[in-house]
Amino acid sequence: MPLKKPHNGLQNGDGSHEKDSRHFGNGSQQQNVDLNDHEGEQNLPSVLEVSNNSPVVNGIGSSLTNGSLNLHSTVKRKLDGEKDYVFDKRLRYSVRQNESNCRFRDIVVRKEDGFTHILLSSQTSENNALTPEIMKEVRRALCNASADDSKLLLLSAVGSVFCSGLDYSYLIGRLSNDRRKESTRIAEAIRDFVKAFIQFKKPIVVAINGPALGLGASILPLCDIVWASEKAWFQTPYATIRLTPAGCSSYTFPQILGVALANEMLFCGRKLTAQEACSRGLVSQVFWPTTFSQEVMLRVKEMASCSAVVLEESKCLVRSFLKSGLEEVNEKECQMLKQLWSSSKGLDSLFSYLQDKIYEV
Amino acid sequence: MPLKKPHNGLQNGDGSHEKDSRHFGNGSQQQNVDLNDHEGEQNLPSVLEVSNNSPVVNGIGSSLTNGSLNLHSTVKRKLDGEKDYVFDKRLRYSVRQNESNCRFRDIVVRKEDGFTHILLSSQTSENNALTPEIMKEVRRALCNASADDSKLLLLSAVGSVFCSGLDYSYLIGRLSNDRRKESTRIAEAIRDFVKAFIQFKKPIVVAINGPALGLGASILPLCDIVWASEKAWFQTPYATIRLTPAGCSSYTFPQILGVALANEMLFCGRKLTAQEACSRGLVSQVFWPTTFSQEVMLRVKEMASCSAVVLEESKCLVRSFLKSGLEEVNEKECQMLKQLWSSSKGLDSLFSYLQDKIYEV
Amino acid sequence: MPLKKPHNGLQNGDGSHEKDSRHFGNGSQQQNVDLNDHEGEQNLPSVLEVSNNSPVVNGIGSSLTNGSLNLHSTVKRKLDGEKDYVFDKRLRYSVRQNESNCRFRDIVVRKEDGFTHILLSSQTSENNALTPEIMKEVRRALCNASADDSKLLLLSAVGSVFCSGLDYSYLIGRLSNDRRKESTRIAEAIRDFVKAFIQFKKPIVVAINGPALGLGASILPLCDIVWASEKAWFQTPYATIRLTPAGCSSYTFPQILGVALANEMLFCGRKLTAQEACSRGLVSQVFWPTTFSQEVMLRVKEMASCSAVVLEESKCLVRSFLKSGLEEVNEKECQMLKQLWSSSKGLDSLFSYLQDKIYEV
Repeated sequence: MPLKKPHNGLQNGDGSHEKDSRHFGNGSQQQNVDLNDHEGEQNLPSVLEVSNNSPVVNGIGSSLTNGSLNLHSTVKRKLDGEKDYVFDKRLRYSVRQNESNCRFRDIVVRKEDGFTHILLSSQTSENNALTPEIMKEVRRALCNASADDSKLLLLSAVGSVFCSGLDYSYLIGRLSNDRRKESTRIAEAIRDFVKAFIQFKKPIVVAINGPALGLGASILPLCDIVWASEKAWFQTPYATIRLTPAGCSSYTFPQILGVALANEMLFCGRKLTAQEACSRGLVSQVFWPTTFSQEVMLRVKEMASCSAVVLEESKCLVRSFLKSGLEEVNEKECQMLKQLWSSSKGLDSLFSYLQDKIYEV
Repeated sequence: MPLKKPHNGLQNGDGSHEKDSRHFGNGSQQQNVDLNDHEGEQNLPSVLEVSNNSPVVNGIGSSLTNGSLNLHSTVKRKLDGEKDYVFDKRLRYSVRQNESNCRFRDIVVRKEDGFTHILLSSQTSENNALTPEIMKEVRRALCNASADDSKLLLLSAVGSVFCSGLDYSYLIGRLSNDRRKESTRIAEAIRDFVKAFIQFKKPIVVAINGPALGLGASILPLCDIVWASEKAWFQTPYATIRLTPAGCSSYTFPQILGVALANEMLFCGRKLTAQEACSRGLVSQVFWPTTFSQEVMLRVKEMASCSAVVLEESKCLVRSFLKSGLEEVNEKECQMLKQLWSSSKGLDSLFSYLQDKIYEV
Repeated sequence: MPLKKPHNGLQNGDGSHEKDSRHFGNGSQQQNVDLNDHEGEQNLPSVLEVSNNSPVVNGIGSSLTNGSLNLHSTVKRKLDGEKDYVFDKRLRYSVRQNESNCRFRDIVVRKEDGFTHILLSSQTSENNALTPEIMKEVRRALCNASADDSKLLLLSAVGSVFCSGLDYSYLIGRLSNDRRKESTRIAEAIRDFVKAFIQFKKPIVVAINGPALGLGASILPLCDIVWASEKAWFQTPYATIRLTPAGCSSYTFPQILGVALANEMLFCGRKLTAQEACSRGLVSQVFWPTTFSQEVMLRVKEMASCSAVVLEESKCLVRSFLKSGLEEVNEKECQMLKQLWSSSKGLDSLFSYLQDKIYEV
């Protein structure tokens, strides 16, 4: 049964549409928040205030650097040039008001006509960084989408960062507390999160609006179609921050980018621009930022007009030869992270690196 | 024993050589057709008249569209600019007259010095579309070439289209008639056709003169060297026309192009230009249309001067790790197509898509 | 325990630094050679005189041609433009004087702070061509580096050629003498050389300063990060010179470059420029020749500041799925070469090709 299509905030989300006040006609909508959103939303007003003042300034961002660049300053600089970019906040209101099946705190899930749209929109971490809790929400949303009548999944993000990967402040906080227990818990959260992508049977389209880092970049080859805005960039500086690869990137990156470039990303933190990622095969097409969401929506809707059986069976054919290998890689990678985090040497190395970075800044 | 090299029509086949009348000195050659060509050639004169008036205008071409393009109009537009392109017809005469081992209707097979040249030149379908009968002819020619003393195979096409893939008018006609029987027969014809490429032991060079669509594009990674004219383009809009991938493209495309671009081709019908296909690895070199056949011939002849053992053993080394995997993929893909065609739902979806396209035009 | 960093000749090795006379302050250093370098160095002075007059003019280089180019003239032409490029000779002096662990004749091994630097610097072959003896030296150096406290390996070359592959004059000389015995011995030397790269557990960074041919290009995908100078180019004309692929190129090249381009390299001797190799994934980054060694050193030193465990475990994750496959390919490839060389037909074909080339020149 085709669902009635709700209003799609993303399509009006560009800077060029910021005068569009359809969602904010009378200012009464703030009150509705409490009516529509329950559970995880009690802290929304305060969170929104915070994100209003400093939407993506991130104290931990500075840890994601390699020799030549610094996420902190890069992202900050990018944002300074976008002060009037209110898409972030407005969308957050609008999507939460229009959706009835929204029971998530750090992601937004929208049922569209023929597809499910998951948006990373973290309230509890900066720059859409991933914590075990957020990863669990994504898994839950994937699980729902696999069971409902949607033909495919669109994954994107609210704000100007797609996903900054694992939340290192969270990681350090927890590991400092109880190394043994937390290393297992966090490694298993990553494993299950990645596994959910590997096992998802419907096509996943991912739309990268901005920086995709660490785990946020590693999972892209587990998705089926990857479209990026010209503003997107990609970095997996695992070795630089004293970690081993995750998200199956130790397998998928060499496959797609060739061993040389894959290793340069994994070992040296080489950053790829959207165009570079496209010419090397990580991304299939790059779109202009101002029309990015329209271009994506246009194509996703056309895809969603295809036969559900054909889409699922085609994905099955493409993925069947990779699936078991990917699951094995995922297990190995998470096993390695767990070992690293539970050894005092591995942890010291990680902490001292981050310590250095904090003093540096 | 080296064969005496017959005159090679292709080398004089470019537009720039159209004033070259070596093959048509006295107009007496039309009469020779009946002398040299038997069996499948009785209908040649009438076919040639047809192809003279409308060489590649194709009523089914319109089904091969995706969101943003339409093969019908594209091909037509391309051809309007090539009205004086008589290569097609002349070559057809010349090759049929000069060859003694020509017992094919929809392909032309030429034994050259050190290599076999197969040209798609379909009389019974438009735009070199493939029917089970044509695929059988190609298999027969591959079988002959594998047994003779040629060192390698050159595959190309007569006309301005390389191959438009499966003949959908044929497909619909047959499936409408006897769904159960025909779905098995056609799926098996595809399976055997693709298998013949997988198992062919000598190097296959393929020269893509124009559009390569569907199965015509999917088989390219099963060939060993792929050269394309600047005029070539590539599209496999399987999901768009409600089909699952064939020709091992579900395996080879992700391997070569990366999952993202491969899926964009298989799911969204993304079209690649010759240059894009080259930069992404589907094609190894692009040549200027006017000198395309000369460039190809030059290189093929040089390759044919290599040791036969070295060529075959090198191919064996390159392919040995892929062969069994490819055969398995081929079986799966054809099994899936058979299921799709034998289910009323799958067929309805395919038919209604084509119906829509016909009304649209 | 961090080693004290010795003076690094490479960093001062560029043309722009040729006025830097730190190593040659008083001309007394020639005498020191005999004091510092023993064993393999007795013939150094005469070798250096030879390489002074004709550093890379190579009688066998002319065999490494394909249709359109000739290594001999190319390399010669390149070098004519670099007459004042004294990096080669100076470095040879300096590295041999400063190192105590230098017991090699055709390579230079330097222990740096956190990494081992192996430089191809062949005294017994032209253009850093590989003989079984030189390959054995590299294996020995790899073995040492795997056991010591270095975190990674840097592989580069002295001179303007990275490595011209197997030494064909050596090959022909030996095979002419005792086909049966020598074909086994040389094939096994290649097998063990390639195996040493496959099995090396620490990351290998390779810096390609100039042409990399045959086996010298084939081993690159067995290394982890490949950086190239703008002057580098890549060619593996195996079939052209009547050989089958080696160095696992029959597996790694199709993986990285796609079957079409890989086969064009293996079958037709297609030459790739540094930029082409980079855009196709064989190389991960291209640097300007004058700053090449600085850029490489900068990055290698940063990599060497990473945790040794993280580097080794990351490489283990990336390689674990390839290792057994690569070892199998290596065995097969070397088996094939052995068969070719021990058959009179295979050898005749190789010899007659080289004969033709000599007459041609």
